[in-house]
Parts: sequence; structure tokens; C-alpha cells
Amino acid sequence: MTERPLILITNDDGINAPGIRTLISIMNTIGEVVVVAPDSPQSSMGHAITLNSTLYAERVYIDDGPQIEYSCSGTPADCVKLAIRELLDRKPDLCVSGINHGSNSSINVIYSGTMSAAIEAGIEGIPAVGFSLLDDTWNADFEASKGYVKTITEQVLKNSLPNGIVLNVNVPNILKKFIKGIRICRQAKANWIEEFDKRKNPQGKDYYWLSGKFVNLDGGEDTDEWALEQGYVSVVPIQFDLTAHTYIKDLNTWNLND
Amino acid sequence: MTERPLILITNDDGINAPGIRTLISIMNTIGEVVVVAPDSPQSSMGHAITLNSTLYAERVYIDDGPQIEYSCSGTPADCVKLAIRELLDRKPDLCVSGINHGSNSSINVIYSGTMSAAIEAGIEGIPAVGFSLLDDTWNADFEASKGYVKTITEQVLKNSLPNGIVLNVNVPNILKKFIKGIRICRQAKANWIEEFDKRKNPQGKDYYWLSGKFVNLDGGEDTDEWALEQGYVSVVPIQFDLTAHTYIKDLNTWNLND
Repeated sequence: MTERPLILITNDDGINAPGIRTLISIMNTIGEVVVVAPDSPQSSMGHAITLNSTLYAERVYIDDGPQIEYSCSGTPADCVKLAIRELLDRKPDLCVSGINHGSNSSINVIYSGTMSAAIEAGIEGIPAVGFSLLDDTWNADFEASKGYVKTITEQVLKNSLPNGIVLNVNVPNILKKFIKGIRICRQAKANWIEEFDKRKNPQGKDYYWLSGKFVNLDGGEDTDEWALEQGYVSVVPIQFDLTAHTYIKDLNTWNLND
Repeated sequence: MTERPLILITNDDGINAPGIRTLISIMNTIGEVVVVAPDSPQSSMGHAITLNSTLYAERVYIDDGPQIEYSCSGTPADCVKLAIRELLDRKPDLCVSGINHGSNSSINVIYSGTMSAAIEAGIEGIPAVGFSLLDDTWNADFEASKGYVKTITEQVLKNSLPNGIVLNVNVPNILKKFIKGIRICRQAKANWIEEFDKRKNPQGKDYYWLSGKFVNLDGGEDTDEWALEQGYVSVVPIQFDLTAHTYIKDLNTWNLND
């Protein structure tokens, strides 16, 4: 690549979140950066897109740059669509999403706005990575993430990614000196055991708050959960062809056309 | 199964949509039915869940039953979580979602609230199917779908589904006599070429409407798109382990830990 790569940045915590500000500062050292990110937090939005209401995108100036930034009223997936179709002059060489405040490991990838943005870029044929730090507080410390985010980004630009695959990167919330390195992993089989907190509103009507406990059901030592617990940065290759190809043969034995 | 199966029904078009009313009438002939569905349309919500606001679920009486129904303020995935944890006495034997007004074939599975509900049930270890008709109007005619929905449901109850797999069923929008039968398929490689309709609001500020054209890039005759075009009902087995297992070996050749 002779010219500097064009890098599209988005996230789901909103354009002012410390995580995306960190990501912007790293990407400014690698390429030409355009940010199109939600104007407000969009966590756990999954792969939502905005079909039934209008979208706004406004040029904003949050720091001294040199990146170009747009604040968008939509979801992370909306941001990527709008960037590619309307706001960018050319197709970006890379899309990075994050750094998310909180884990997107294991089954959380399904609910993740951060990863939906990366997947949306992947659908458009753009190499894409979602980055997350296992600390969901606004004041999360992204210092230890910086070097790993840079290394992985440079390797994606060097090696590219095949069509249909994006990367899901999670960084453990420990001091840099305790991080053991980067591990390529599979998504752990884990899920949330939800607990609904049932309350009564001032009018006496029942309502619920969703909360829950994350349970790793997977004993494998090749999973993202295992790697993160051991102090590794986890990298999971993610596909958006959801077909369970190995099960097609079994389904063909069912009596569906009798 | 000696007692009648407990069937959980949800959708993303809202509890009053003709598609879910059709699905309820079919499921009442098969098992004991509990409906927990959104109180308003939730299309293209992807796998969104409600973490930062409250959820309501209200017992409602829409027709003569015999099903039990709750109208819920949340997303399709919320409905499934709330049903399993709070509203149902026992784990359902099956979860069916739909019948969606509009296609969820190919890449649309990613954006689909209908399928996110089925996937959420699958994560909980419940056999699950999402049904969609290729007609996105409120007055869609579900007559031709009925027999196929019943057949597929009965086969799922008979054969069950392995952990980690749910079914995505789409029915072509043609007369029953023209439907050729059921085909097991893979998800077609297709995507949306978005076009944003850029307008000015009364205050002179730019805004956008998302619209687009669906483009099938896949010439395969084993895809859902192909089957639907030929007049078949498509059944795609869907997995929610998003790991691209075949690419892990390649990623391990990258220089990530130098």
C-alpha cells in the first residue's frame, strides 16, 4: 500500500466515549481516519438498523484531529452504512469498532453493537475488527490495550482478511505487564442466566429490570473465555454466514415433503 | 411425548400482527401455547436487548384462546428471556417466532428480530424456528404458509434439533398450488446495496432515509434465495457459534506475538 490506508472508525458507546477516543489516537498513527459514530450509547443494540425513522449525521470537532468526524443519530450498523454510501469518498481499507467499554467475548458477540458494526463492514467486503476491553466503566483504563490494538490492526492491513470473516478482539482488564500476549481462539459456549428484578412502579404496575450472571459452560482451553482468564488478548475470527453447513445432511433425512 | 408440548410464540411485528395470529392458530392444534410478543413492531431490531430501561409484560386477551398471551414492551429477544425466566412455569418444548411479514432469507437473518428470538431460545437450549413470508404488507396472505408451518413444526418436535442450531424458514409469496415443496438450503451470499435518500428538514438540516436494493451475488442452486425463486419453502439451519473455525489455522500464522 503506497498511500496511507483509509480507516473508518465507529463504536456503540457513543462518539465521546474514552474507548473510541483511544482508538482514534492509535489509528491516526496508522492511516487517514474518518469517524462516524453514534451520538449516544447504543450498547446491546445487536445488529439493529434504522428503517422507520430518519438519520442525522453531523460533522463534529471534538479534539485537534487530524481525523474527520461525524456524529450520527443511528445505530452502529447505520453508521457503517451511512459512512460507506454517503460520507466517504472512497471505500475504506479497514473498519475498526470500539474500543468497547465491556466484554464482547463468547455469546456476547450476538448482542454486541460493536461487533455488529464490524460485521456490517465485513458484509461490504471491508476488512474489519471489533475491539473490546473487559471493563464496562466509563473510566476504563485503555493503556494496556493500545499496543495490542496497534499490532492487530497492522497485521490485518498486512495480511488482509478473507471475504466473510471479521475479527473479534477482547483485552483482559489487567495491567499491561500481566498480559501474556495474543491468542487465536474460538467463541466459548457460554450464556447468561438472566435474573429479572421485578418491581412495582408508582402506579402499582409490575415492571422488570433485566440483569444476569454470565456462565461459561465450556471447559475448552482454546476458547476466548479461557484465554482472557489466563491473561491473554483473545482474537476470534467471526463469520456472518450463519448456515450450520454440517447439519444440512441430517435435515435432508427428515420427512418434510411427504 | 405423552403430554402436549408447551410452545412459546413470539415475533417482531407485534402481538396484533396477522402473521403471529396465524401462527397461534396453527400452534393451538399442536400444543399448549403461551404467547409473549412485543406490544409494537420491532422489525430490523437485530439481536437487541433492553438493559438500560424497564420492561413491562401485561396479560392480554386478544381472541377466544385457548392460548395465554402477554404483551411485552421489549424486543423479541427480551420477550424470550422474560418468558423463560419469569412468565412460564416450565421450560418450553419449542419456541416459534413469526410468521414474519417479509423475508428473512440470506443476509437478512442478521438484521432480523424474528430470527433473534429463535436464536435466543436456541441459546437457552430450546428447539426453535423462525417463520417468514416474503410479503412485508400488513395484509399479507398467510394461507399458503399454514400447512408448511405445521409440517415443519411437527418434524422439529419429532426429531428435535441439536444444541446450537435453530431453523430459519421462508415461504415464497405465491399461491399454495404453485409451491413446489420444502428445500433444505444454505444462506445465500447476498447483500443490500443501500441508497440513502437525503432530504432537508423544515429547519434546513440534512437528514437521511435508509433504503436499498437487495442483490443476490450467489449463483448456487443450494441457497435459500434460489429455492424461494423456484417456488420452494426454504429451510436453513442456523448456528450462533459465529467462530470461523476453518480460519483459525491461518490466523495462527500471523506475526501477532513478536
